[in-house]
Order: sequence, then C-alpha cells, then structure tokens
Amino acid sequence: MPGSGSKVRVGLIGAGRIGRLHAEHLSYRLPEAELLCVSDVFVEGAEKCAENFNIKDVYGDYREVLKRDDIDAVVICTSTNTHAEIIEASAEAGKHIFCEKPIALEIDRIDHALEAVSRAGVKLQIGFNRRFDPNFRKVRELVASGKIGKPQILKITSRDPEPPPLEYVKVSGGIFLDMMIHDFDMARYLVGDEVVEIYAAGNVLIDEKIKQYGDVDTALVLLRFKNGTIGSIDNSRKAVYGYDQRVEVFGSGGNASAENEQPDHVILTDTEGGHTAKPLYFFMDRYVQSYLNEMHEFLQVVKNDTAPPVTGTDGKIPVLMGLAAKKSLAENRPVKVEL
Amino acid sequence: MPGSGSKVRVGLIGAGRIGRLHAEHLSYRLPEAELLCVSDVFVEGAEKCAENFNIKDVYGDYREVLKRDDIDAVVICTSTNTHAEIIEASAEAGKHIFCEKPIALEIDRIDHALEAVSRAGVKLQIGFNRRFDPNFRKVRELVASGKIGKPQILKITSRDPEPPPLEYVKVSGGIFLDMMIHDFDMARYLVGDEVVEIYAAGNVLIDEKIKQYGDVDTALVLLRFKNGTIGSIDNSRKAVYGYDQRVEVFGSGGNASAENEQPDHVILTDTEGGHTAKPLYFFMDRYVQSYLNEMHEFLQVVKNDTAPPVTGTDGKIPVLMGLAAKKSLAENRPVKVEL
Amino acid sequence: MPGSGSKVRVGLIGAGRIGRLHAEHLSYRLPEAELLCVSDVFVEGAEKCAENFNIKDVYGDYREVLKRDDIDAVVICTSTNTHAEIIEASAEAGKHIFCEKPIALEIDRIDHALEAVSRAGVKLQIGFNRRFDPNFRKVRELVASGKIGKPQILKITSRDPEPPPLEYVKVSGGIFLDMMIHDFDMARYLVGDEVVEIYAAGNVLIDEKIKQYGDVDTALVLLRFKNGTIGSIDNSRKAVYGYDQRVEVFGSGGNASAENEQPDHVILTDTEGGHTAKPLYFFMDRYVQSYLNEMHEFLQVVKNDTAPPVTGTDGKIPVLMGLAAKKSLAENRPVKVEL
Amino acid sequence: MPGSGSKVRVGLIGAGRIGRLHAEHLSYRLPEAELLCVSDVFVEGAEKCAENFNIKDVYGDYREVLKRDDIDAVVICTSTNTHAEIIEASAEAGKHIFCEKPIALEIDRIDHALEAVSRAGVKLQIGFNRRFDPNFRKVRELVASGKIGKPQILKITSRDPEPPPLEYVKVSGGIFLDMMIHDFDMARYLVGDEVVEIYAAGNVLIDEKIKQYGDVDTALVLLRFKNGTIGSIDNSRKAVYGYDQRVEVFGSGGNASAENEQPDHVILTDTEGGHTAKPLYFFMDRYVQSYLNEMHEFLQVVKNDTAPPVTGTDGKIPVLMGLAAKKSLAENRPVKVEL
Repeated sequence: MPGSGSKVRVGLIGAGRIGRLHAEHLSYRLPEAELLCVSDVFVEGAEKCAENFNIKDVYGDYREVLKRDDIDAVVICTSTNTHAEIIEASAEAGKHIFCEKPIALEIDRIDHALEAVSRAGVKLQIGFNRRFDPNFRKVRELVASGKIGKPQILKITSRDPEPPPLEYVKVSGGIFLDMMIHDFDMARYLVGDEVVEIYAAGNVLIDEKIKQYGDVDTALVLLRFKNGTIGSIDNSRKAVYGYDQRVEVFGSGGNASAENEQPDHVILTDTEGGHTAKPLYFFMDRYVQSYLNEMHEFLQVVKNDTAPPVTGTDGKIPVLMGLAAKKSLAENRPVKVEL
Repeated sequence: MPGSGSKVRVGLIGAGRIGRLHAEHLSYRLPEAELLCVSDVFVEGAEKCAENFNIKDVYGDYREVLKRDDIDAVVICTSTNTHAEIIEASAEAGKHIFCEKPIALEIDRIDHALEAVSRAGVKLQIGFNRRFDPNFRKVRELVASGKIGKPQILKITSRDPEPPPLEYVKVSGGIFLDMMIHDFDMARYLVGDEVVEIYAAGNVLIDEKIKQYGDVDTALVLLRFKNGTIGSIDNSRKAVYGYDQRVEVFGSGGNASAENEQPDHVILTDTEGGHTAKPLYFFMDRYVQSYLNEMHEFLQVVKNDTAPPVTGTDGKIPVLMGLAAKKSLAENRPVKVEL
Repeated sequence: MPGSGSKVRVGLIGAGRIGRLHAEHLSYRLPEAELLCVSDVFVEGAEKCAENFNIKDVYGDYREVLKRDDIDAVVICTSTNTHAEIIEASAEAGKHIFCEKPIALEIDRIDHALEAVSRAGVKLQIGFNRRFDPNFRKVRELVASGKIGKPQILKITSRDPEPPPLEYVKVSGGIFLDMMIHDFDMARYLVGDEVVEIYAAGNVLIDEKIKQYGDVDTALVLLRFKNGTIGSIDNSRKAVYGYDQRVEVFGSGGNASAENEQPDHVILTDTEGGHTAKPLYFFMDRYVQSYLNEMHEFLQVVKNDTAPPVTGTDGKIPVLMGLAAKKSLAENRPVKVEL
Repeated sequence: MPGSGSKVRVGLIGAGRIGRLHAEHLSYRLPEAELLCVSDVFVEGAEKCAENFNIKDVYGDYREVLKRDDIDAVVICTSTNTHAEIIEASAEAGKHIFCEKPIALEIDRIDHALEAVSRAGVKLQIGFNRRFDPNFRKVRELVASGKIGKPQILKITSRDPEPPPLEYVKVSGGIFLDMMIHDFDMARYLVGDEVVEIYAAGNVLIDEKIKQYGDVDTALVLLRFKNGTIGSIDNSRKAVYGYDQRVEVFGSGGNASAENEQPDHVILTDTEGGHTAKPLYFFMDRYVQSYLNEMHEFLQVVKNDTAPPVTGTDGKIPVLMGLAAKKSLAENRPVKVEL
C-alpha cells in the first residue's frame, strides 16, 4: 500500500478505446498516479498505447502485470467476458482493482468474483463513470441534502447517437445489459434507494436486423423503488442529434434536473428563429470529465485506504435490474428485482 | 345555422369557475360570439356571471336555454355527472354543443350521449383545451409535418401545484380520470395514433387521506401505441413550484419538446447563481390562451359547418384509457385499451 | 371624481392603432372603466372603433368629449403634434389625462402643457407603457430592493423588426425622439436616477433613403448617470428576427437581465442543432400586457386620487435626452442633459 | 525547422501562473510538442514547474534557452515589461515565438520588437487566447460566413470576478491596457474590421484606492468601425457572481450571441423559482480550452510554416486602442485610433 504522499503505481489491462482513455488520464492528467505497464492480448495495441502515453513496459498477457511487485493497482478495460477472471486473479495477486462495467452478465459469476475480492481484502471500484459527471453528481447532492424534499418521481433520458455494431449486440447482453445498465446504476445513485420491481416496454424501431438477437433498440422502463419513488428510463440506440443524457428527480420540495452538455453556448437568431448547438456527440466527449474524476477518486481510495465510491455490489445490482427488465419485456409483466 | 359573417348566438350552461372563464371570452374576447344567456342551478352564481360579463338573460334551469330559438350553440360547464344528460337534451333541441371533459365516467353513458348527438346531426366539441396551447400545438405540428421523423418515444410531465379538495376526489373518478385524462388526450394528439396497452404505477406520497378513496397522488404510466411508439406520463398532485406541464416527442429525425411557460424571463445572477421565475401557477394562468383558442375554433366550426377539432370519440377514448390505467394499477399488470 | 367603488368614465380621443388597442382594453378587459365616447378627426375611424368596441357616442372633434359632464378622464392617442393642445384643453375642462408619449417635441411646448395640468390639478399619466411590462418591472424591483446592490452598468437593447414609413420619420423627430425615447425612459426607470451626459453614435446601415431627413437607422448611445452608473442603449430599425427588447442592470451585488418574450417554448433538436421560436414580432404582441397594466394603473390613480406612476416630468425628460443625443450625434461630442 | 511529422521542441520562458498552464499543456496535452527546458529569474519557480511537468532543464536566465540549438520555439510568459526585449533576443536567435499579450505598453517599443521579428523571419504569435474559445470562434465563424449578414452592432460584456492587486494596477497600464485590451482584440476579431474612433466612459465604483493610480474599475467604451459597425464594451473589475464573458454581433441578417460557460447544467426548481449555477469563476476555468487551442495552433504554424492566427500587428493594435480609450476618458471626447 503506498503512503499517502506517494504515487499509486498502476498497471493497465486492456488497451482498447476505453483503456487508452484511462491511459491518457493516468499518464498525463493524474499526477498522483504512475502508469508503469500495459497489457493487451492484441500486443500491438498495447505497444501503440505505451508509445502514445509514455508507458514503459508492455505485455501480451495480463498475468505479467500481476506478477510485478511494484504495481499497487490494476485498471481492467478488457472485454466483458474476461472481467470476472481478471478480477479474481488480481485479487489473488493482492492488487487493488478498478474494473469497467459490467463485472459479468451472470450473477453467480459476479458473486464468485466479489468473494475473491472480499477474501483478498483489496479495493474494487466499478466503472460507473456517470456518477462522477458534474451534472448528475450535483443532482444527487441536491437530493441527498434534502433540497428537493423526499424523492417521488425519477426520470432518466438516455439515448445514444448511433447503434453499436451488430457484432457487439450479439454478445453484449442486449440493450438492458449493455446500455440501460448505466441508467439502472444512475437510478439507484440519484434516488439513494433500491428498485424492487421493474416493468419494461421495448420495440425495434430503428433497424430490423437487431431482431435476430432478440433485442430491441427503443425501450422504456418503469421502476418502483422501496421508498415509494416511481421512475422511468427511456433508451434509444439512435438520437440523430447526438448523445441525449438527462435526468430529473422530483420530490416533495422541488425538482432537480440536469440538461445536456453542449460544445458551445452560441445562439444564432435569424428569420427562422433561434439556433443552438447539438449536445456533445457521444460518451468520449460528454463524459471525459467523469472518467477523469472516477479515476482520481479510485487513486484516493487506494492511497487513503477508504471505501470505493462504486462497490462490487453496485456493480452487481444493475445486472440484476437488467435481467429483470429483460424478463419483464419477454413476459410483458412487472418483475421483482431480487437483491 | 348562422351565416358565415354573422355571430354565433350562445347559451352558457353552468356558471362555475370554468363557466365564468368561457363567459368572459364569449362576451369580451370573441367578437364572433354573442352570449345571450346563462343558466346555473345555483341561480345567484348565474346572476353574478351575467352581471360581470354583460349577459342579458339568466336561468336556474338549463332547459330554459334550450327552449330559445335564438340560441345556436350551448357551452356546457356543469358538474361532470350532468354532462351526458345535457348533451342529449341539447342535441334533441338542435343546438350545437361545446362540453367540458369528461362526457361521463361510464362508457355506456358516453355512448348513449354520442348517439344522441349523431342522430341530431349537431356539432359536439369536447373541452380538451390543452390541444390549443401554443406550445403543444407546435409540438404536434412538428410531429405531423414529419420534422422529427417517425415518433418513437413520448414523454409527458403533468403536475399540479396542489391537490384538489378531498370532496372532489371522492366523485372525480380518481387521478387517472380527473387529471391524467388530459394527458391521455395529449398523448393521442401528439403522437397521432391510438394507445393499445397501458401499465400504471402509483403511490400515495403526498397526503395519506386520499387512500380512503382508493386513489393515489403520484402516478407514472407507460403507454404502448399501435404504431410502436412507447410513452410515459407522470402525474403529481403537488409540485411545490407550480404547474409543471411539459411534453417531449422523440423520433427518428429529432426531438420536439415544450418547456413550461413563465410569467417573466428575468434572470437574477448573484453570489448564489442564476435565479428565474417559477412556472405559471395553475391552469387558469397557463391555459388562458388555450381556452380562448378552443372556443374560437368551436365558433368557427359552427359558423362554417366544419368538423370539430375534438370530437365525441376524442372525449370517449381518454376515459377508456383512464379506466384501463385504473385497472392496471389495481391488478399490477398491463391492460389493453379496447377501442 | 368617481368614488372608489364606481367606474371611471372615459372618453377616447384618437382612434388609430393605439387608440383602438386602448378602446379594446377599456371596453372589455378593464371592468373598472366605462368607455363612453370616442372622437377622431377621421370620423369613420371613430365610428368603426365605436362599433368594434361597443362605444355609444362618436365625435369628429375632441372638444365634444371635453364638453361632457359625465366624463372623468380622457385617453389621448392622437398624432404627436396635437398632444400638448389637447392636454391643455382637457386640463381646463377638469378631465384627468392619459396621454401617449411624447407630450411634444419642443421643450417649451411641453412646459406649457404641464403648467396647464398643474394649474387644473388634474392627473396626467404619460404612456411609457414599457415600465409596465412584467419583465422590466421585475428588473426594476430587483434594483429598487437592493437585490443587485448599487447599480453600476446598464445595458438596453431595443431593435424594431422593420423601419417605420419614411413619412413617419419625416415628422417623428428621428430615431432618438421616436424610438430611443422609450429606452431613455427605461434607463431612468431601471436605474432610478437621472442621466447627466449623453454621447451618441449612429449610422445609416439599413436604408439610405433615411439620410434625406438627417436621421440614422442604427444607433448606440452611452449614458452617464448622476449616481455614477454608466449605460448603453443600442437601437436598430430592423432586426430581421423580430422585436428585440432586452435590458440588463449590473451592480455591486449581482446582475438582473430580462430576455425576450417568445410565442412558445418549444425546442426542436435535429441533425442541425436546437431550434426555438423567434421573439414576439412587435410591440402589439410583446407589450399587450403592459398596455393593459398601464391603463389599469391610470384608472386606479383616478379612482383613488393617487400619484400617477409616469408623470408629466417623466414625459419631458426623455425628450430632453433625445435632444441631447441628437446634438451629440451632430457634433460628435458628449452633451449634458440640462434638467 | 522541424519536419511536418516531428515534434516542435519548445523552451518556456517564465514559470508564473500562465507559464505553468502552458507547461502543462505542452508537456501533457499537446503530443506535437516537446517541452525541453524552462527558465525563470525566480529559479525555484522554474524548478518547481520542471518537476511538476516533467521538464528536463532549468535556467535562471532566458538567454540559456536561446543558446540551445535543439530549441525550435519559445513561449514567453514573463512580466510585460520584459516581453519586447525577449522577443527581440529570441528573434535574433532564430527561434519562433509565442508571446503573451501585450508586447509592450509603448508603441515604439512594440514597433522595434516587430521589426526584429520581421528581420529574422521567425513566426510570432501573440497570446490573445480568447479568439480560440469555442464560443467566440463560433460567433466569428457565423459573422465571417455571412450568417448574420453585414455586421451593424457589436456588444462585448467582460467582467472579472475580483479586482487585481493594487500592485498590479500600478504597472499594468490600467483597465484599458490590462483588461479591456482582450476585448479590443475580440472586437476586431469578431467584426473583422478596424476601429477608427473610440469614446470611453469610466468610473471608480468598486474600490476608491484605485484612484491614486488614475485608473477606473468600471468602464464602458463605444467603438466606431471603418465599415460602419458601432460597438460597445463594458468592463467591471468585480462581478460578484464570477467571470462574465459574453459577446453579441448583430447584423442585417440576424444576431449571434455567446452566453457564459457554466460548470454544470443543473436546474433546481423550488418554491422560490429556478436556480442554476454561476458562470465558471475566472479565466483559468473558462479559457482552459482556448489556451490549449491557441498553443496547438502555434505548434501547427511552426510545423507547417503557415501564418500565425494572431500576428504582431494583432498584438499592437489593441494597445493603440487602449491608449486611445485612456485619452478619451481623460479628455472626455472621442479619440481617433491612428493605425
């Protein structure tokens, strides 16, 4: 465990798009970190990442990272189906773990990994980065501080600018587990309470091809919370105007809402009316600050031996919610979330 | 039938709050109307209304209005349980009819009234005034003209500033029939399609006393439309910041949303941040223009012998939707709307 | 003088565009008024106005109005060059006076009229209606209540959607006296202090034809107030997007600004960005509420024998400011306003 | 001169607040740069900077930087009174130059430096960073592309959150040369034309102490452009709500305006109204992106041998404008800008 003043020595596992984003932050924008090595089964990818972000050592096998004594923590950005295994191996190696969501798509696989973490006594933080977005965090703070009274209605709008490749949908678990999972986490985070029942509606309205995987591209889900709050989440795979990420919590004392972020605040007014910019295009634009913030907090957790802001259980529950939503859609009835 | 240039001669039936609003418009703000008489079972109310709005004749019994040969049309603003009967009598008397919503709370009672109207060949327009709000009308026009492509997701936020008296809830049919009924109409209007199935969630979060009438004060309803659009409506009986009336239609080509109306557009920026006005307080403030517009259109319908913009069927379907929502809440399952 | 409960009996002098607006308000929207007669040198105009707004008596000569014993107050909406004369005659006849701005374009003519009013002891209210706009009034209240601290910088944006006819410019006194005069009044009203010096810049950028009258169509004026506040007013005769009417007062404790009013609050977001409505087109749209409010307040002044909210002196000072601005533009130097 | 693919090797001169900002960008966020050394007369400052941003060599004398053969370009962030001298020495040493504004406060000193640059044939870019702010750049693009037609009125609001130390004001040249100089540059940039005459008003409204230096803390300046556009700039040393940086260009075809940037887009609506965040606090928050962009463009200029986006002349003219404004304030009359 590094002393409070020293740097956290990090190994990166997985050098894809999100891995490279974390690499940039760890190398250049988070002075409390020292990114020592990177691994990727596609070793050329790891090499390119190392070159771009000034990382000394490169491996093709993540086990090489875990072998090193000078590594305090790992950041896992591999494909979903390897998360649980790498979490377990990292825990056994005594490394603190930051892992991208989801831990796994099967609950017992998740439980197995969480037990390994628990046994090893290492930190585990799951990458639900949106909690660290300044907008959503402020809404949460307004709710938590009682500024809107007791929460009663939650609304989350979450629409992507374009559908993922069909290849991805085939293995991702579908819209509830690869996309709405973020919103399920956001729902728990904003309201500060658990969802007990879910009813899901969904349709294929964008591209028929997705039907072959039993998935939908447009979904609207109704949530009932233990504390009585009722909520909805709507998802679309394709908002032509860009990434639409808004939330609203209504309560007995007021309403807190977060609007989209835009690249500028210029208004052109002409004979047709007023014209403004589109929202930031996608998550690499909108959530760059939240990715930076979550990694900063993870480094603080490791340095100061504090509790992670997004725990393993926080990683598991949205999967349970996604599975409940999937079942609800299939059976067209409300489904309980069994925590 | 009055000639195209002449005035429509109107009799007002019911001189309560909404009746007086229409009286003011008919007397002072709609030159194409001539408001000749007013009736109310509470005859002092009718007299006061007549005095305020310059109406010549006053009756205690609406039948006196119907007897007059010089009346082209009636405007029915009595309590809900008398609507159907007065519609029938007015139709038999050959009068064109503007009637406040709902026609009745029972479907066969509605059907009976609509048959009478059909037999008599008179015009019937139902008072779903929100369709005439400049904001919602513009959203509808954007949808209808294809500006947002094919509709996919609908969201309606509809919250009152304060709960009605318990006395009212006792006879109103409950939140789905007295409050969300407006939003059911709005849903059909905005999407331009019928709802085939409804799932409703609801809770008592504001005042426990409402439980004795089996009603809820907070509700979130999920709608499935024939054309595949999915929608939600949320209702609260009490938004402490005032009347919250917003809609949003998302489609394959964009998103159209209507924000609240405010009494001014002043921004105070101080050491705490920016501060703006609350929304207009309630329907008499927010919808004054829509009430004026709907009556203007009704007068045009009578003058020009055209089809009413809100028909008897438009009056019936939201009641069917409200009943489906009520059933869904009671049985916690999606319920089909049988048109 | 009418008792506090009775109606104020009004005679309208001048049945042009603005006269008809006041006629509608006095007849239909202000129950505390009784509009008994209307006069216009163009008697057909007065007749049409009488017919539209239910006014009993019509005259070609305003002196007929003044002769009537049953008239408490007159509303003067004739052309500017007759204002002073009619004010004087009305004052001599003991009538309270509401007069459209400006009283006259020559200071001694104004003084003469104000003396007549003072001698007669009647009320005189000048039609600087914008003070009664809910936006500007709220900004004034924020300033007056100290919410922005001590005022330091004032900014007024005031642009018309289209230039007036050249015929009008010929006799109007030019942009500083027919258009910016409203903004001069607004400047005094918002800051609550007098302007001591003015520097004006102006150009012909829209239509060269205006040059023959020595006028400009685009102007920017810098104001120095007695209390140290510095301000600017910009005017354009042609904003292609409609009526642009915004103000901002910055002070030691914050900033209060008023944005434009729009016909709706709908946002269309598509592949090009966000799109909103244009501002309300012109003063008959934007200021309808302020015209109603000012007349309501005038009626209260008459009924309750209180001081007018816009006095004769308030009518005179903006003319002094306009003359100073004109001189400043001609001589390209700052010019003192001699109060 | 570095090849198009290679990195630009940079020496930083001056390691104060703004120097450290550029150091961070050059070291971590601009891969096309290689920051090899830093100098500061306060050598401990240079050492700390080197440590924080991973810079190899440190000097107390900037001449050591210029001696190095492996340096392509220097970034000058020293105090204003040394700029001209260092520009000259750098030019003689054949280094490309990025220099913070202003070049100097005396015109002949500026001319002398610019001649040295011209003689040496090196690039010189002046640090008017706001041109690279995404908002102002977009407004400029809307103007340049003709989207608002021919410009007619310009308005710039520029207010700091707190006054600088009195020590600074003593040597800075005063509000027109240390603060409004940015807005003078912005005025030229946005309109795309030169200012020919300036009239300035100013007052001490915040802190009397500034009077001893003959300066003001609140100023409003009126600009006349060659092309007929009229403009205003208002400055305050203290906006209690934070950094207020807005611009507006009005033209024959429309209006383009840029609003402030805020740290989030959350709206709390409660019984008092709507509440939003304050603007970003000061230039290190608001203009971080613009500082990054300007340096990126400078590196491109060096790499690709293109013309700098902000030239030496662009550095000189705002000083001429500031001197004209100062004279105008002193003599209370419009003053020509002699280019």
